[in-house]
Amino acid sequence: MRGIFAPVLTPFLPSGAPDITRFLWHARWLLSNDVNLAIFGTNSEANSMTTSEKLTLLHTLVEEGKADPNRLMPGTGACAVGDAVTLSKASVRLGCGGVLVLPPFYYKGVGDEGVFRYYAHLIEQVADERLRVYLYHIPQVSGVGISHSLIERLMKAYPGIIAGIKDSAGDWKHTASLITHFGKGLVTEGSGAYLRVFAGSEAFLLRTLRAGGQGCISATANVNPARIVELYHQHETSQADRLQDACQRLREAFPPHALIPSMKATIAHFTQDKGWERVRPPLVELEEEEKESLLRRLHELKFKMPDPGAC
Amino acid sequence: MRGIFAPVLTPFLPSGAPDITRFLWHARWLLSNDVNLAIFGTNSEANSMTTSEKLTLLHTLVEEGKADPNRLMPGTGACAVGDAVTLSKASVRLGCGGVLVLPPFYYKGVGDEGVFRYYAHLIEQVADERLRVYLYHIPQVSGVGISHSLIERLMKAYPGIIAGIKDSAGDWKHTASLITHFGKGLVTEGSGAYLRVFAGSEAFLLRTLRAGGQGCISATANVNPARIVELYHQHETSQADRLQDACQRLREAFPPHALIPSMKATIAHFTQDKGWERVRPPLVELEEEEKESLLRRLHELKFKMPDPGAC
Repeated sequence: MRGIFAPVLTPFLPSGAPDITRFLWHARWLLSNDVNLAIFGTNSEANSMTTSEKLTLLHTLVEEGKADPNRLMPGTGACAVGDAVTLSKASVRLGCGGVLVLPPFYYKGVGDEGVFRYYAHLIEQVADERLRVYLYHIPQVSGVGISHSLIERLMKAYPGIIAGIKDSAGDWKHTASLITHFGKGLVTEGSGAYLRVFAGSEAFLLRTLRAGGQGCISATANVNPARIVELYHQHETSQADRLQDACQRLREAFPPHALIPSMKATIAHFTQDKGWERVRPPLVELEEEEKESLLRRLHELKFKMPDPGAC
Repeated sequence: MRGIFAPVLTPFLPSGAPDITRFLWHARWLLSNDVNLAIFGTNSEANSMTTSEKLTLLHTLVEEGKADPNRLMPGTGACAVGDAVTLSKASVRLGCGGVLVLPPFYYKGVGDEGVFRYYAHLIEQVADERLRVYLYHIPQVSGVGISHSLIERLMKAYPGIIAGIKDSAGDWKHTASLITHFGKGLVTEGSGAYLRVFAGSEAFLLRTLRAGGQGCISATANVNPARIVELYHQHETSQADRLQDACQRLREAFPPHALIPSMKATIAHFTQDKGWERVRPPLVELEEEEKESLLRRLHELKFKMPDPGAC
């Protein structure tokens, strides 16, 4: 797996239930814009959904929505390893290219041994050689990080199955170090397996690709797929730095403390469909003032969503 | 509800599944020692279990184990409000005296409005006037706290249903302030509803009771029920300070960074049943050295579990 992934936003109905129709529409729109689907990410409000709600969305997307499962990397991590097993098994059976797995995130200050056991238990319970685990490092949210020594131990125990990592820590030095240490395989080990490194946003996309990483999994790919994909394809051309700057300027229009409601408000605006604004607790929709300020910034940047009515 | 509650430890089978037999034994032993059951707390490894595993344990405890549901306060909070609704509904239908509800704990830095909506959604979906919600304030683990203004708003919106709080922040001033502000009802509101305040451990039990709180919900009640209950009953006598000191000395024998494995190792030792030692990832069992050091400290304190074979 490589390229640009979006943690697919999850629309909700007035009842609060996941809105399958808008979800399928958005997924198709992303795929048609060359963005792959990391459904059930942080920006999908995945941990605010039950396992059964996620199973329904996943099955519907592949079976009714006919999404190519090779382009899917569902987030399957959970505090309870049993939930992670259920979602990962379903993903593998449907043919998904990989699963993105948070460490268990309730207890803080746990050591590598416990997190290793969590991933080991998951892999052994799924018991399918097609499983491809992408580790999810986002310590500022999960409170539990994934250390270099843990990665090394996992790659040695499960070469090939430990397929990659999403680094959302927001620290370029850390991403660079992951690529250096694991992006070409383990020096001490001959399996040929290496870690596919994805930046946690397009902010580090160019640097990640130049260093040998595979791409990015970025929230704002939900609203700005075209330019991020263009940067991905042009990263070896003379246009690369200009495209990176343009992506970054747009990214900065979205306030980090309200990223999900801001992206939903943007889609609601450009599709003229207010239903897109709904979020689940503990998140809240933007206030009118915040919305106006966001749309003003997007207007100044001449931002338009590419053909939002096309799917 | 008042008195001493234990967040009931959850034993596991070699397969990793919850061990219903040992669970029922332990619950009966706690009840026979005058300790009420806050099953599915932090120290129960509740967030490491799936909703369906918890439903099975809860139903078995009440229906087969014949535990008095009035003495049960199951932890039902979850990141996904749908899971919290499922567990809370089951608890109310079984007649549980209350439910202890964590705020959603994946997203950090969320505001009171989103946490209010979570509790409001829960209460409105359970839709049963028998529901009694105990808020669970443990910001050092959950990463999301429960502010005074949130409590006031919830008490006004749902008087009587918002029944109490467990304060596990480890800051006596905060517990005292909860009792002062909410322990006698809201000054501005005439419903007569007040907040039952439980300390998060026996460390503040005497102070909590003297200030007008209702008791404590403490991990170490799993292993030291008798002395903590004695302190509860004797808190107005001249023995109170001595009993508080004795509880505290014993409590300090259990290392805070490995509290759950330490309590499980203690029960395993005194019941001569090594199966009790098992924990779920991301927790790990004590190393042999840590176990020896713990048992040595307990021996020095002349600690014995009261009649562990009696149930």
